Amino acid sequence: MDDKLVDTIVQQVMEKVAGNGGAAPASTPSTAFQHPGMTEFVGTAFGDTIGIVIANLDPLVHEKMGLPAKYHSIGILSDRTGAGPQIMAADEAVKATNTEVVSIQLPRDTKGGAGHGCLIIFGAEEVSDARRAIEVALKDLTRTFGDVYANDAGHIELQYTARASYACEKAFGAPVGRAFGLTVGAPAGIGVIMVDSAIKSADVDFIGYLGPTTGLSYTNEVVGLFSGDAGAVRQAIITAREVGVRLLGSLGDTPKCLGVPYI
Amino acid sequence: MDDKLVDTIVQQVMEKVAGNGGAAPASTPSTAFQHPGMTEFVGTAFGDTIGIVIANLDPLVHEKMGLPAKYHSIGILSDRTGAGPQIMAADEAVKATNTEVVSIQLPRDTKGGAGHGCLIIFGAEEVSDARRAIEVALKDLTRTFGDVYANDAGHIELQYTARASYACEKAFGAPVGRAFGLTVGAPAGIGVIMVDSAIKSADVDFIGYLGPTTGLSYTNEVVGLFSGDAGAVRQAIITAREVGVRLLGSLGDTPKCLGVPYI
Amino acid sequence: MDDKLVDTIVQQVMEKVAGNGGAAPASTPSTAFQHPGMTEFVGTAFGDTIGIVIANLDPLVHEKMGLPAKYHSIGILSDRTGAGPQIMAADEAVKATNTEVVSIQLPRDTKGGAGHGCLIIFGAEEVSDARRAIEVALKDLTRTFGDVYANDAGHIELQYTARASYACEKAFGAPVGRAFGLTVGAPAGIGVIMVDSAIKSADVDFIGYLGPTTGLSYTNEVVGLFSGDAGAVRQAIITAREVGVRLLGSLGDTPKCLGVPYI
Repeated sequence: MDDKLVDTIVQQVMEKVAGNGGAAPASTPSTAFQHPGMTEFVGTAFGDTIGIVIANLDPLVHEKMGLPAKYHSIGILSDRTGAGPQIMAADEAVKATNTEVVSIQLPRDTKGGAGHGCLIIFGAEEVSDARRAIEVALKDLTRTFGDVYANDAGHIELQYTARASYACEKAFGAPVGRAFGLTVGAPAGIGVIMVDSAIKSADVDFIGYLGPTTGLSYTNEVVGLFSGDAGAVRQAIITAREVGVRLLGSLGDTPKCLGVPYI
Repeated sequence: MDDKLVDTIVQQVMEKVAGNGGAAPASTPSTAFQHPGMTEFVGTAFGDTIGIVIANLDPLVHEKMGLPAKYHSIGILSDRTGAGPQIMAADEAVKATNTEVVSIQLPRDTKGGAGHGCLIIFGAEEVSDARRAIEVALKDLTRTFGDVYANDAGHIELQYTARASYACEKAFGAPVGRAFGLTVGAPAGIGVIMVDSAIKSADVDFIGYLGPTTGLSYTNEVVGLFSGDAGAVRQAIITAREVGVRLLGSLGDTPKCLGVPYI
Repeated sequence: MDDKLVDTIVQQVMEKVAGNGGAAPASTPSTAFQHPGMTEFVGTAFGDTIGIVIANLDPLVHEKMGLPAKYHSIGILSDRTGAGPQIMAADEAVKATNTEVVSIQLPRDTKGGAGHGCLIIFGAEEVSDARRAIEVALKDLTRTFGDVYANDAGHIELQYTARASYACEKAFGAPVGRAFGLTVGAPAGIGVIMVDSAIKSADVDFIGYLGPTTGLSYTNEVVGLFSGDAGAVRQAIITAREVGVRLLGSLGDTPKCLGVPYI
């Protein structure tokens, strides 16, 4: 058997492994997808994201979770990889439905990568609203994973919205109704220079600077939060993206875009 | 070389890789096991668990660890994968020996998976008691890993005892002498519906609800804690298991049981 | 195709996988290294470590980071794998340059392994000083990774300096100008017995005992910190190394030294 054949096999295996690798910052649902056959199940999406609804939450659970009394139904958006994409998708979901984001918890996750996972709870008076919110969010994840770039060493993430709503306010303190953007760099040092570049490039309000032990869940990231006029926020985010992708590439392969850039 | 042969090789490699994969929530000690030849070493078990005793802890270490004065000897149960199985095994160990669980710390671990590792310290007046406690716990892990189910996306864990002892009290606030059970779902959203299902299925005392940033070490889990009559607690746990396994399967392959179910 | 050939292929793939495995506690920069072509970029090193300088930090970022007013320039040392090696290297850098270590944050990282990553910020009045500090630190990492030993189950780390400076003081409370050493064991239980062995073997000042939830970032480690006379500290560290490597070997392959031992 010649070397070329061995290389082919090795290549083929590496590709398979890449899909499951602990260091990889994202994952694709297996092709062996099984519908669980439960009415509570809404669907799955990129990043090992699962969407679930509970029509009538047990009163004891309701109390332990500290939910507002009026919400009998909840929607659950939970994942292994990503917090920014899910929060931005939740922001679209609250705009489009009669629901409220009542809780956001960020585990230290990304399946061996440098970032977060996410647990978002929507409250709703009607289960149909909760279900609709989860459907909107799951669908929007294809878009919000658009500006995530990764290689074996880390990841870069950018998010932008022309009009922030209540999920961005709850998670990041973003002023509702104004443009909002965020930058993420991992390893964290890349995030520092992304923030500095963003703020130098446009006249934006600098509303937050988060580090591993200062606002994040011990992730290896620095996050910058920006509000202001749409054009300025967008320009700041685009500048940070260019800087981040170039620096991350110095630690490994050219960072790969996980979706289709939307900013 | 035909495709079938390539497939065979790829399959074989994947199986080997699976044993070490960062995303895998468990691991097997290597066959290259080496006895360290130290009297302090007691043994190893599933989940990269190691058991150690120290006959006469140095007084300075004793003080920094904040141990009760009367315990000159300690037993150490430490692992990369799992906290529930080790705590339940420690509970059996304190029942069977003249020891006390003096400290439980839960790292964020599982080797790239979504959960905890564990560091449990037993205090004992005699080193023989400390050693016996570690031996009992290491042996019992085969049982307590019985209701852990995992795939690439996450894991489900169930634990149950007809009579909780002091390790369950210390770790979970479980009333001593009563039946106790716990449910774990990862990603965390699966854990939420497991808790709700458990409590709806039987008349149990709901003694705790833990989330990534509310009681856990930034793991991507939601944990439910239940006490009460043996039959009711057992029923609640079994219901949660069915729900959890079905939902986790929607994110990947059918969750694989890591041991022999005991509940 | 005979079994031997299959074994050869499997072996070859496993070696490739080992370099990227989520469970592996360290990584090598890819051969596909790309210079980002930015003046801010200083270089990379083992452990996915990147060094960056910012000549004139934006005043808004300066304020959010809480830096002393006099430092207009910063140096950034950031990585996925390791905190001890980077802090010890930073200690040499502050000795050699006109800079100050103004911030140290420790993410929970190691790319699926049991330990930390690191984000160290140097402050400087001149960018040339910041750059020099990062250059010194990046170069010194080859040495400070010398006493790190790892296998699939965990890692052991030892550090020693005959004369601690301000980075060790800031990170560990080490008295400046005296000998200082640290021991790390992962899984954490191995770290406990390393600390006990170290302190029993030499007359040292025991200045710190850190666990997963008591001083560390939920890593699966126990860390011991020792100060005192050079000979005694060195002896304590060497004793801990012997104990740690032997015990870690009981969980898998013989722990592999990641560099050239320097202690």
